Amino acid sequence: MERKKIKIGLFGFGCVGKGLWDVSNQTPGLKTEIIKICVKDKQKQRPIPKEYFTFDKDELLYNPNINVIVELIDDADAAFEIVSTALKQGKAVVSANKKMIAEHFTELLDLQHKYDVPLLYEGASCASIPVIRNLEEYYDNDLLSSIEGIVNGSTNYILTKIFKDKLNYAQALKQAQDLGFAESNPKLDVEGFDARSKLAILLAHGFGTVVNPEEITNLGIQHIGELETRYAREKGLTIKLIARAKKLNDKSIAAFVLPQFIKSDNQLHYIDNEYNGVQIESCFADKQFFIGKGAGAFPTASAVLSDISALTYDYKYEYKKIAQSGGFPLSNNFVTEVFVRFTSDIEIDKSAFIEITEQYTALRQNYIIGRINFENLISADWFNQTGVSVILTENALVQQISNSESNHVSKEKHQQKNALANHLFV
Amino acid sequence: MERKKIKIGLFGFGCVGKGLWDVSNQTPGLKTEIIKICVKDKQKQRPIPKEYFTFDKDELLYNPNINVIVELIDDADAAFEIVSTALKQGKAVVSANKKMIAEHFTELLDLQHKYDVPLLYEGASCASIPVIRNLEEYYDNDLLSSIEGIVNGSTNYILTKIFKDKLNYAQALKQAQDLGFAESNPKLDVEGFDARSKLAILLAHGFGTVVNPEEITNLGIQHIGELETRYAREKGLTIKLIARAKKLNDKSIAAFVLPQFIKSDNQLHYIDNEYNGVQIESCFADKQFFIGKGAGAFPTASAVLSDISALTYDYKYEYKKIAQSGGFPLSNNFVTEVFVRFTSDIEIDKSAFIEITEQYTALRQNYIIGRINFENLISADWFNQTGVSVILTENALVQQISNSESNHVSKEKHQQKNALANHLFV
Repeated sequence: MERKKIKIGLFGFGCVGKGLWDVSNQTPGLKTEIIKICVKDKQKQRPIPKEYFTFDKDELLYNPNINVIVELIDDADAAFEIVSTALKQGKAVVSANKKMIAEHFTELLDLQHKYDVPLLYEGASCASIPVIRNLEEYYDNDLLSSIEGIVNGSTNYILTKIFKDKLNYAQALKQAQDLGFAESNPKLDVEGFDARSKLAILLAHGFGTVVNPEEITNLGIQHIGELETRYAREKGLTIKLIARAKKLNDKSIAAFVLPQFIKSDNQLHYIDNEYNGVQIESCFADKQFFIGKGAGAFPTASAVLSDISALTYDYKYEYKKIAQSGGFPLSNNFVTEVFVRFTSDIEIDKSAFIEITEQYTALRQNYIIGRINFENLISADWFNQTGVSVILTENALVQQISNSESNHVSKEKHQQKNALANHLFV
Repeated sequence: MERKKIKIGLFGFGCVGKGLWDVSNQTPGLKTEIIKICVKDKQKQRPIPKEYFTFDKDELLYNPNINVIVELIDDADAAFEIVSTALKQGKAVVSANKKMIAEHFTELLDLQHKYDVPLLYEGASCASIPVIRNLEEYYDNDLLSSIEGIVNGSTNYILTKIFKDKLNYAQALKQAQDLGFAESNPKLDVEGFDARSKLAILLAHGFGTVVNPEEITNLGIQHIGELETRYAREKGLTIKLIARAKKLNDKSIAAFVLPQFIKSDNQLHYIDNEYNGVQIESCFADKQFFIGKGAGAFPTASAVLSDISALTYDYKYEYKKIAQSGGFPLSNNFVTEVFVRFTSDIEIDKSAFIEITEQYTALRQNYIIGRINFENLISADWFNQTGVSVILTENALVQQISNSESNHVSKEKHQQKNALANHLFV
């Protein structure tokens, strides 16, 4: 099979871009050549000859000698302009910009179709882990039942530092930023928006479900406080930020990003630091884990390289599941179990819960554990409020239940026992 | 994208075959229908209508209404006859028979090419883990540096029982067989032949290296005794049977199956029971782990199903790396470090070692730890002999060294210090 010669126009020359340069020059078998690099900063000194650089994007986008655009810039809006222009020019594109891809998914799908050129973005979800390719190619929609995982390296790094090194949140965030594991705007990471973008991409390739990322509920790790950290430690649990998509009985899809307590018998317990881990469940109740580095320049470069290599063989996403099912719809009508920690000045309406299984009250901090319909959870006025920390419990199932139970919001019927947490706060 | 309708002729109706039947009847989206099932045992009662069964393989192989043959029988020779006839009849084939595929790789490649029909066999390596597909599609040959992993579920189950439940080898083997994790002939599993077949398949899809499985050195777990088990436990190590392929500096490939001591900071330490785990290392020193069930009917069925699903989209292996590189050659000319335990009646010629780093002598059992050229190791008369247990050390690198060092076999020059193992045998 003859490999296609790839002539790259590269946008961005940070660590990932520099890595690409090195490898494509050291690996003739890859048959890639970087023709021109478009950068923004006119002052910056760069380690390769000046003539490779330009500040004018059109020099790449309209260059007939370039057949592949590799887009590695931070700004999602500028990235979309570059990528869509490139596709219109009939150039294949590789990008790792999850925000841009998730927000413009349908437009990018249409452009690929209309101009018959591939857009690959394996680096946009879980960096080095080939999860998009596997969902697209290996897991049949009818057999796939759930995807769940740690998909954001910087929040996982922060949580690892909080749990293993007992740093506080601010110290851990600082460390993650110093090491380059956090994006320029930490809000995207720590509030779960980055994980949400990735989940949107996984939804499309896993279940054929194309949604605006805003339709997916996300919480981050910024509300996680000392009480729940201690609660977790004392029970041998850890807290991880989990992105999850699960096929419900009626073939609608539950999808959300929430922190969760994780037991030590769960493989996700051991995914530490900047590593990502995805667990895919398919027919026959079989689980597979994919583990790899999820943040940092090298893992992203490694995914970008695999995409470039795939282009030499004319690989493209077929988006089979979208074509096949038209996409299963999202649903928030399912029941799960949450731990809600809240400061004493906040009122939690317990009638929102189907059943309250634990309750703890102290002078300044309280918590409730209970089963709740997800619709009621996300519409509660305390959800995602400062002073409130919502964490999925370690045993929480995500399941559809009968309408009668799901609509039941009366609290009287349910036992509310006090938490056996006396040893917790001495 | 229109899915092709799959009409299956099924060979074998054990657990995997029965699972396939259930799923294909419950999952209309898969567009698969089992037309006829060929079985051997005429007496056996079966849970589905009689008219589906036949004892004549030609009723499937020459049936124009069948377009896919799924081969799920034990006997590798009979399987090859079925698979090759099916390919010649222009029928696509799915098989999970690693022995058959590894032993007939070139012939099967030729048949696929000549009759332009796909043969898929994801279940033939690491059962449920999509490792073949990923090596074939995702990891470019120029970027891939090593594949190593636990690829045999039954030996891993046995080793787990030895280390976690302190069973002895015979008890653990019995348990594995009772649970259906061991093949009909345990020799294939416990002596590392099954792992060798799988490694041969991974070599072809990972590095384009097609070899006769007999060219790959394998040891199993049957020689592992109490001394090395205790040695491992006392140092916080475990022993795993590791299949490994590594690209050497000169682009030849080191490939072998050997037991190895595994430290607790290595992910493979935690792959227990029937699970398989594969670690793939690619450019940028990036590691990915794939973990999933590696033995048992369901994991294999799940891989078989994914292959069938892929056929509905006309997927086939392109064998790109074989076409591209013609395959990197195997090499045994590299240095590694081994632990050799031997009974006192056995003579170990120490001059075979480049350097001996530890030595322990007792009344009945002794061990030596040392660096050795792999060629010298496998040609030693004590290699794979009863009473001798060879285990790769936990830090063992596999590396090419200069000729002068590699050829040096004089023992005088090297320090031979006694092992600090006094606490071991009190």
